[in-house]
Amino acid sequence: MRPSASDRIRLVAELDTLFPGRVSRSPSLLEQHSHGEGYHAAHAPDAVLYVETTEEVSQALAFCNAHDLPVVAFGGGTSLEGQLNAVEGGVSLDLSRMTAIIAVHENDLDCRVQAGVTRQALNLHLRDLGLFFPVDPGGEATIGGMCATRASGTGAVRYGTIRENVLGLTIVLADGRIMQTGGRVRKSAMGYDLTHLMIGSEGTLGIVTEIQLRLQGIPETTAAAICQFDTLAGCVETAVQVMQMGLPVARMELLDDVQMQACIDYSKLDSYRPVPTMFFEVSGGPQAVAEQIGTIEALSVDNGGASFAWSTRDDERAALWKARHAVYWACLAFRPGYVGISTDAIVPISALTEMILGAKSDIEASGITAPIVGHIGDGNFHTVMLVPPGEDALARAHDLDARLIARALSLGGSASGEHGVGLAKRDYLPQEHDPVSIDVMRSIKATLDPKNILNPGKIFPAARP
Amino acid sequence: MRPSASDRIRLVAELDTLFPGRVSRSPSLLEQHSHGEGYHAAHAPDAVLYVETTEEVSQALAFCNAHDLPVVAFGGGTSLEGQLNAVEGGVSLDLSRMTAIIAVHENDLDCRVQAGVTRQALNLHLRDLGLFFPVDPGGEATIGGMCATRASGTGAVRYGTIRENVLGLTIVLADGRIMQTGGRVRKSAMGYDLTHLMIGSEGTLGIVTEIQLRLQGIPETTAAAICQFDTLAGCVETAVQVMQMGLPVARMELLDDVQMQACIDYSKLDSYRPVPTMFFEVSGGPQAVAEQIGTIEALSVDNGGASFAWSTRDDERAALWKARHAVYWACLAFRPGYVGISTDAIVPISALTEMILGAKSDIEASGITAPIVGHIGDGNFHTVMLVPPGEDALARAHDLDARLIARALSLGGSASGEHGVGLAKRDYLPQEHDPVSIDVMRSIKATLDPKNILNPGKIFPAARP
Repeated sequence: MRPSASDRIRLVAELDTLFPGRVSRSPSLLEQHSHGEGYHAAHAPDAVLYVETTEEVSQALAFCNAHDLPVVAFGGGTSLEGQLNAVEGGVSLDLSRMTAIIAVHENDLDCRVQAGVTRQALNLHLRDLGLFFPVDPGGEATIGGMCATRASGTGAVRYGTIRENVLGLTIVLADGRIMQTGGRVRKSAMGYDLTHLMIGSEGTLGIVTEIQLRLQGIPETTAAAICQFDTLAGCVETAVQVMQMGLPVARMELLDDVQMQACIDYSKLDSYRPVPTMFFEVSGGPQAVAEQIGTIEALSVDNGGASFAWSTRDDERAALWKARHAVYWACLAFRPGYVGISTDAIVPISALTEMILGAKSDIEASGITAPIVGHIGDGNFHTVMLVPPGEDALARAHDLDARLIARALSLGGSASGEHGVGLAKRDYLPQEHDPVSIDVMRSIKATLDPKNILNPGKIFPAARP
Repeated sequence: MRPSASDRIRLVAELDTLFPGRVSRSPSLLEQHSHGEGYHAAHAPDAVLYVETTEEVSQALAFCNAHDLPVVAFGGGTSLEGQLNAVEGGVSLDLSRMTAIIAVHENDLDCRVQAGVTRQALNLHLRDLGLFFPVDPGGEATIGGMCATRASGTGAVRYGTIRENVLGLTIVLADGRIMQTGGRVRKSAMGYDLTHLMIGSEGTLGIVTEIQLRLQGIPETTAAAICQFDTLAGCVETAVQVMQMGLPVARMELLDDVQMQACIDYSKLDSYRPVPTMFFEVSGGPQAVAEQIGTIEALSVDNGGASFAWSTRDDERAALWKARHAVYWACLAFRPGYVGISTDAIVPISALTEMILGAKSDIEASGITAPIVGHIGDGNFHTVMLVPPGEDALARAHDLDARLIARALSLGGSASGEHGVGLAKRDYLPQEHDPVSIDVMRSIKATLDPKNILNPGKIFPAARP
């Protein structure tokens, strides 16, 4: 049974004794730890505890488990679906100070980092070694948080999501026990795959404190290309054909006319028009790059693409991908004072044209401004629904999201490609997964966290059907 | 509690009534279902039941669970670590008749198959569509069995193991409930990753009946190259450098001098010498292929490689890879009357040279003939220990395997890259994984299979420490 409000105050005081100087109840920190970057109403924890080592996480969880106190792991604070909200109060366990890059094995193309390292910090550290880490969600996400939500980004079409790039984890279980999963090798067949059970479990099964990551060598040559299209259909069809040909494209992102307008305004992409646009990146040896660019250009032109322009200049590429990573902020600036709610549907690639054209008409019918940007090679796209103040507009936005998800599920897709379930997608879980698999998920949760202290209220629908 | 011997006879008779004409107790079939292709002493089941649908698997498991009767899933019969032995008797559930290719979505590069489909049958079906399935363990393994053991093969260096190529599964749980995991999309962040929990669980958590697989487009150009080296070290160093440069090599296999002699004899590779040798395959656009071949040749020559020869002719490539896939049989033919026991260690690639040169000296010290063949790009290699009749030689072979595993573990490796645990590697599990993670594995097993009917005696060491 959860402790009462007065017991919680006493427990936080005890925690303060256990971790002197690391516990805060300052209103501004409680507020900061009451939500992510999503739109959900905030839920503040009773306290924030800053941890610096795996052993400290272990001590904290042992204490909280003994006292039935909920624990929400907190990293970069960038999750979008309410994963960070402390819906039952308790402790927000802040791992953002765990920023050690423990080891880089450049000859093995792997490294080990603490959970609070961001991808930006890691890539800065790796650059001089000729290596990079390819998983790039928007925002200053931590690697631990990326594991928790099964994140991906623009590099997934080539290198996979975080799921394919983690070799092993250090996990602290609900009762404080420390567990190592996986290892350093590229593959192993020794026992159950606990690494992948933990990835995407959103802090409900254990807390990630260290991660063994695969790295990639920076390719000899990298080129970026932009192609603008007469029609959205031509744009999507080009992406479908690139995938079907098995071209090893490094990145391939779709921006619709509205999104391009927002990016032109925000990122000063003045030489482009507000029409459906594809950003490509290809990499490899110089001949392979030239060959791929030629093929992509031919496909693009066949599908009504015009103004195909490519560059191998680092500064031009950097400007392009900086603009791409800034789309969320570009959207918010596009309608000042509005709330941005990102959708996250994904479909098999053959259904993409139907999905995106359908989404476009759903958006028009809703009356909501909602630019589309997509990890198109994966079949995953986001609309940032720009919602004016007021209950009515918020209800219309939720209705639009529900329509997009229903459309994606009817096409064999998923409600979330990369943002996770959190609070926002809980009620979609039974629409996507059968009751038996949800029962199995619940039974694993009950086995590993019998007191339900780890991020309670997330992933599973509130009431059992 | 397990049924007595007389109860088991009665239960098999009941099963015969439930599945008329599908239950066999013929001695030859019981013998065939008492072992895989490994060296272990056989353990016959009480009966073999041939199933043809997921629903039949469900009925069979519900029956067996109700009566505490063990069930061992059986596919191609090719596993190497004793996974198929019915150590507690019970039912060998034969899924080899479940050979339907349910759907191929060529535009999505995916398909859905029943568990009894072999990779050979699938690739034959796919060839005219310009697609292929890249996971290729030796032998006529079924896709269901490959999921169970987390198999891989020569294509893993480019395309990953079965783990990276399965999108979703139909699983029958111990009590007969049917569960769908994953889906059709390339990625999803909706709930726990039950797909990967099942992959590699060796039929101890559930039985795979259908698999949603990723497919690959057949590349425009494919070339194979062979390079023979003065020294084993030069051979290994070339592989390490290819990986460190991030070349997207499609296959890269090492054969040591002894293995080459066996292959020359068995597969009539008369134009080659019995020296350390690398088989390469590269694929992509013609310019990309030429570029890669040039880079690999330069690296090979730098490391003492001679007689670098490459070909894009289909028949020459096919002959080469046929010889590679036949190494196990080549080894057996190399010492007629001997038993072949395959080792399966894997290490981080930077440790490969030390690992393989150390293995070579361990082999020499053991007095056992043991050719080396390796999925060298993954850091995974096999020695086929050729063991003459007699207890003494068998003990020496086990001792050699233990030395190789100890060496691999000390270098940050794993006891099994792709063959799994089964019976043979159970006692190595606690050497490789910590007690907490093994406890978690056991607790998941107990949750999903409380009566321990699914492949009992496998993966976990017999006595709890």
